[in-house]
Amino acid sequence: MKLPEPIKNVVDGLSRLPSIGPRQAIRLAFYLINESKEDIHALAVNINNLRRIKICERCFFIHQNKDNLCDICVNPARRKETIMIIEKETDLISLENTGKFTGRYCIIGSVPKTGILEDWQKLRLQSLKSFIEKGIDDGGLGGKADEIIFGFNPTSLGDLQTSILVKELGPLTKKVSRLGRGLPTGGEIEFADDETLGSAVDRRS
Amino acid sequence: MKLPEPIKNVVDGLSRLPSIGPRQAIRLAFYLINESKEDIHALAVNINNLRRIKICERCFFIHQNKDNLCDICVNPARRKETIMIIEKETDLISLENTGKFTGRYCIIGSVPKTGILEDWQKLRLQSLKSFIEKGIDDGGLGGKADEIIFGFNPTSLGDLQTSILVKELGPLTKKVSRLGRGLPTGGEIEFADDETLGSAVDRRS
Repeated sequence: MKLPEPIKNVVDGLSRLPSIGPRQAIRLAFYLINESKEDIHALAVNINNLRRIKICERCFFIHQNKDNLCDICVNPARRKETIMIIEKETDLISLENTGKFTGRYCIIGSVPKTGILEDWQKLRLQSLKSFIEKGIDDGGLGGKADEIIFGFNPTSLGDLQTSILVKELGPLTKKVSRLGRGLPTGGEIEFADDETLGSAVDRRS
Repeated sequence: MKLPEPIKNVVDGLSRLPSIGPRQAIRLAFYLINESKEDIHALAVNINNLRRIKICERCFFIHQNKDNLCDICVNPARRKETIMIIEKETDLISLENTGKFTGRYCIIGSVPKTGILEDWQKLRLQSLKSFIEKGIDDGGLGGKADEIIFGFNPTSLGDLQTSILVKELGPLTKKVSRLGRGLPTGGEIEFADDETLGSAVDRRS
């Protein structure tokens, strides 16, 4: 059975989003059809308004400022010499919610296992290097960051991504670090996997 | 960390859709932000166009016809005296894709376990009853349908939904039936559950 054109368009549009398959897209489209015309319109307007969101030219997080930097990068209380490299925006939000990090970020995306960055990732890495290398008088770091923290997931892929980027960024920083590993707060020792428990022993404090 | 208003609006709008939680809604919103402005706009326009979709006043499936009936209900080749009661639009699409059913449908939604229909479901049931009871000269069925098929899922909930509606619709039809149960084509007897295999023995043909 052929779906009417307006539904097919929405199904196509939704099913190219991550983790939404064609069947779920069809269910979502029918759900929307059964909503009020006002609700459908509101969702369309809200999605359209996403076009107004800008990307920070230093850390690549989102913002709505007049200039090209996000709230974190323009905040003088955030140490620009300490940079955490992370995969995605939602990781930044989670990290900000801890209130523990006073440096800045750089969102680099998911580093491919091959170690060959995509073009947009190369541009972001190059932009970060230029910022570190630029003279302090020009708003850069004068050659070296104080610390670069690799904030990738604590998985073997995350470790690989870290090692790939350490090669690129190691010479540009006084110190390299990773997020700490150990027992998650609220967890139980009995149910911790060997890797996690081993890390907790190694990094006891 | 507070999300900017345009993102928050989209996250709110997406997370009220079925099977999309707040976390997935945030991931989807960030994914969209990183798409081109044209793609964002196209999705917004397509969603907005869903407002043009109409609901058939007889079977409650979608359509885009000038009149108030869908393609199936206006098709003279479809027997209007045979009515399949189904839960949702996607079930109708799956059934139509088999090409095996030559009657018409009535989409009633998911019947609550309590047996107490929601208001919109009561309206749909009443509309179906009126159609059956209306005289043949007035476009109705003159008091009785030839057959009402209950096309709910083959689960205990589906059986309950069927029994609830049989009470309402049984007096208005010459015959009541359900979709056949047995081994799914391509399945293996060894792995069939007891209920399914039992049905296959009971309903051998």
